[in-house]
This record gives sequence, structure tokens and C-alpha cells, in this order.
Amino acid sequence: MNPAMSSWREKIAAAHERIDPFIVRTPCVTLPAGALGVPCKLTLKLEQLQHTGSFKPRGVFNRLAGMQIPPAGLVCASGGNHGAALAYAARRLGVPCEVYVPSVASPFKRDRLLAYGAVVVEHGDVFAQALEASERRGRETGALSIHAFDHADTLAGQGTVAKEIEEQVGLPDAVIVAVGGGGLIGGISGWFGQTTQVIGAEPELCPTLHAALLADGPVTVLTGGVAADALGCRELGTEPYRVVSGNGVTSCLVSEQAIVDAQRALWEELRLLVEPAAAVPLAAARSGLAGTPGLAPLRPDAHLCLVICGANVAPATF
Amino acid sequence: MNPAMSSWREKIAAAHERIDPFIVRTPCVTLPAGALGVPCKLTLKLEQLQHTGSFKPRGVFNRLAGMQIPPAGLVCASGGNHGAALAYAARRLGVPCEVYVPSVASPFKRDRLLAYGAVVVEHGDVFAQALEASERRGRETGALSIHAFDHADTLAGQGTVAKEIEEQVGLPDAVIVAVGGGGLIGGISGWFGQTTQVIGAEPELCPTLHAALLADGPVTVLTGGVAADALGCRELGTEPYRVVSGNGVTSCLVSEQAIVDAQRALWEELRLLVEPAAAVPLAAARSGLAGTPGLAPLRPDAHLCLVICGANVAPATF
Repeated sequence: MNPAMSSWREKIAAAHERIDPFIVRTPCVTLPAGALGVPCKLTLKLEQLQHTGSFKPRGVFNRLAGMQIPPAGLVCASGGNHGAALAYAARRLGVPCEVYVPSVASPFKRDRLLAYGAVVVEHGDVFAQALEASERRGRETGALSIHAFDHADTLAGQGTVAKEIEEQVGLPDAVIVAVGGGGLIGGISGWFGQTTQVIGAEPELCPTLHAALLADGPVTVLTGGVAADALGCRELGTEPYRVVSGNGVTSCLVSEQAIVDAQRALWEELRLLVEPAAAVPLAAARSGLAGTPGLAPLRPDAHLCLVICGANVAPATF
Repeated sequence: MNPAMSSWREKIAAAHERIDPFIVRTPCVTLPAGALGVPCKLTLKLEQLQHTGSFKPRGVFNRLAGMQIPPAGLVCASGGNHGAALAYAARRLGVPCEVYVPSVASPFKRDRLLAYGAVVVEHGDVFAQALEASERRGRETGALSIHAFDHADTLAGQGTVAKEIEEQVGLPDAVIVAVGGGGLIGGISGWFGQTTQVIGAEPELCPTLHAALLADGPVTVLTGGVAADALGCRELGTEPYRVVSGNGVTSCLVSEQAIVDAQRALWEELRLLVEPAAAVPLAAARSGLAGTPGLAPLRPDAHLCLVICGANVAPATF
């Protein structure tokens, strides 16, 4: 293991200890080959059971640990899940919170923000515009601006998902993670390094990692489709890019139909109601990782792990 | 441990080995005191992740293990979950299956039976009438009639839920289980004996255990309400009664509103979409087990386990 990797493992282990009182240690379920249409043994990390219905509180609580929070509180931009995590953390810590949401955010996620007591401001059509406004607002009020993914402490917090996977089921042969800005896959790649293959799964319509790997660095892409409210960030973060590009992480693109089919399979076969973004890794696994550069097809004796990253969706839309 | 108990533990351990290739070893999630409105540490056994969305396949596969299935296949009566389990088992074993459903069965559960390839026959308004017809049908065709709960092998299969809980989180101070005919609580009580307090949670409108404990034996009650499609059986089984009455199992009755509130809390706080019956144990825990004869109130340092027993509900009705 190279020194950079060991340092990520240390950061993530420290983060885990720090955030432990604030998060749910989410369980895994392991299914035999053939389940959910995947030809090998499958572990699902049920991270949608995390507080606020997504993995985001891990990064937020690690980012805030030991910080002096100003009287103006916290501010962020978010399609929904990061905002919910920040609002939840603000409520637990007793400080105010403002969340800037782009118009693409789902009404369901907006209602959740309000329920956690955040002030919600709609601004712009995409994440980048909401982000700019939220940072300006932070400079005006003195509120602490917490980025949704592009910070080493955020990655270290999200990386605790990988540490729990290893503790719960050992080292899988491969782990598939949905990618938006890259906070989750950055943390997971930081933990596993090159000991287990980490694969980024992305909607064809939100290809931030795919584009970054092709261009040798984060570039702006157009985003849309069924998972855009969670994954529709236009550019991979620089911090995630540094980690994943150093570890040979690859991108597997999946179609809109494959995402919807995977989401339905999780409900039909396993009674897991999840948001489209959380079904993207299963969509990739069901495709046999077709067309993923540098990857051998799934062997029947492999052990694959999928991170089920969120369930912030209205049941009635199902 | 008395000899009867040790024999149940042996039966359940043997059942676990037998059914292992056919079931999901479902995970637990543990939450700190205060979560979901419960004043003590809480473990949820996520048995709704079982094949067919309820615990029932455990009992069915144990019942069928090593049996000679006649050419006419299998027949049963069921409000839905047992039928789904039998239809699922029939499909895996390649034999035909007929399910008699009372009119109270939800359309959602009926559709599931059809999807598993069963022949569905509606008969009567309540479980007892469907059961009578299914048994008559079995005598006519020679199909093997599999009762939903009242058989020692069925109890032993359901008891594997308790064995997994003990393996996964140790011995809780108390375990709360929803009761209809008593197959699940019978198996769970058989496993734990008197080492951990087992509490039956029942809708006020489906009080089979409550009535049996009062009458010193199973008696017929009227059943109805939001959880009747799973718990609306009119009389506790004689086999379950024998086990639970020997182990000091108590009944906690909960209101319709408490069930609906608990079902909503599981979704709002934990993104678990479950059927009303599966929320009955949480409703009991949130009531502080008020009015349960012979039980001390929940201490803050107690460790309580709830079995989340099914999720066969249409998301759109939520």
C-alpha cells in the first residue's frame, strides 16, 4: 500500500470514530448469484437507512466536527440530499441553516429540507448556479459554506461507508458506487485503494466521471434524466478526481431505462424503495459492466458489492 | 433450560441448516435510544427483505423439506403472505400451487400470487372460510395442503428469525413480534424460551393472542382494521399457543392510529416502506408497552428488538 492510500485509511478511520455518535451503522444484505438479475454473489450496503435517507450525513458530520460554527450558521447548495444532511446536522447542533436548491430538485426533497427546519432558497436551473449563490450568501452573512462533496474531510466521512463494508463482509472483488460530484466514490476509493476494484456507475445523461477520465481531469458536462436530482452535478470535484484517478477507478454508463428497471427490481424482489440514483449501481451490475474500459466481465464466483445510497423519493411516484 | 425448550432450539437449528439455500439471511440495524420515538436502544430485524417480502418462506421451506410432493402440487389458504411464500416455493421446486384467498386479501397481495404463477381462488370473507375450502380442495385433488401457521415444522422455520437475531446482535432484553395465527411468535418464543422476554403485539381489532391468554386457550375473535390482511386470522393456532403460553409471552394491544403512525415513522425516519402488520411491534414499543400485563416499562438502558415482518403493500397507497 502506498503512503497516500494509508493516509486515506487513517483519515477515514479517524472520521469514523468522530462521527460514530451521529450516524447509523447501516447493515449489509448478501444475496446468492442470480438474485436481482446479477450473475454473481451480491452484497448490498443499505445506506439508504442512514439518517435523512442518504449517505450524506457522514461527510457533513466529519466536516463540521470540531469546527466553530458562526452565529449565522450553515449554508449550502444542494439538489436535496446534501441539503437534508446539513439541515439535519444543523438541527442536531442547534444552529441555523440555509439551503440553495436548483429548480431540478424534487419537490419531495424540498419538503424534507423544510421539515428539518432549513430555510430553502430556489436559485438557478442547475447545481452550479445554486452553488454560486450559496457561496455569495455565505460571504454576506458570515454563515459557514459547506460544499456538497469537494473537500477532503467530506470524502473521509463518506469513506466510512467502505470501512463498514469491509468490517461487515470482508473485501469484495468489486464495489460499484453511483457518481455525481464524486464525494462518495472518492471516499470509498480512498478506503479501498487498489485492494478491491471500485467502479463508478453513472447515468449516460450525467457522465461526470466518464468525462473526467477521458479528459484527464474534471470537465463540465450537460446533465439530466431520472437521477439528475441526486447525480446532476456538472463536474466531478477536484478532490474526488485526485483520489479515483490514482486508483484505477473506471466508469460504467447506464441508460435511463436500465436505471428505472433496476429501481423496480429492488422493490419487486427485495422490497427496497430507493431513489433512481441508488439504483444506478444495480443497473451497471445487471448490464454485466458491459463496455466498461479495462474491466473483465463478472465471473460467477465473484463477490460484488453495491452501495444503495439513498431513498429520498415519494412512494406515490412509484 | 427445560427439555422442551432445548428441543425447540434443536429443531430450529436443524431447520436453519435445511432452509439455508432457500432464504435470505436478513440483516439487523441497531439505533440509539430516542430513534423512532422509542426510549431505549432498538434493533430492527429487517425480515421484510426476505424472499416474497415476508418471513413466511422460512416456515414453508422447512415444512416442505424432504417431503414427497404429489403431482397435484400444493394448496393453501392465505391472506397473502403465506400464499406468496408457498407459490414462490412451488415455483422454485417446479410444482403447481393453488391459493385460496378470503375477500379481505389486498389486491396487491393477490397480484403477487399471480406473478409467482399460482392459481388464485377467492373464497369466503375471512381466513377460516378460505382454509376450509382449501382443505376440501386438497382432499379432492390430492394436493398437499400446507397450513399457514399451525404446524411444528412451520414454527421451527419461523424460529430461525430468532436464531439469526441472537447471532447478529446477541440476546436483546425483549423482542416484540406481531401476532396473527402465531406461527412467527411461536417459533421465536421456541428459540428464546425464557432467556429473553417475547412480547406479542396485536391490533386491538385482531386480538387472537390476547384472547387466548385470557381464555387459557385459543378462542375465536372478530378481526378487522388496517393490518387484517396479514393478521386477520380469527384464532391463534394450537401449536403456537402451546409454546407461547409455556414461556410467559404477553400481549400488547395497539390502536389503529398507532399502527398507521408507526408505519409512517418507519418511512419518514428510516426509509423503510412496510405493510401495516410490520409496524405493529413499533406501535407497541412507542406506547411504552402501556397496559401489557406483567411487564415493567421500558428502561432507557434496555435493548429492544422488533421484527419487521413484511412489506407487501402498494407504494402508491402510502
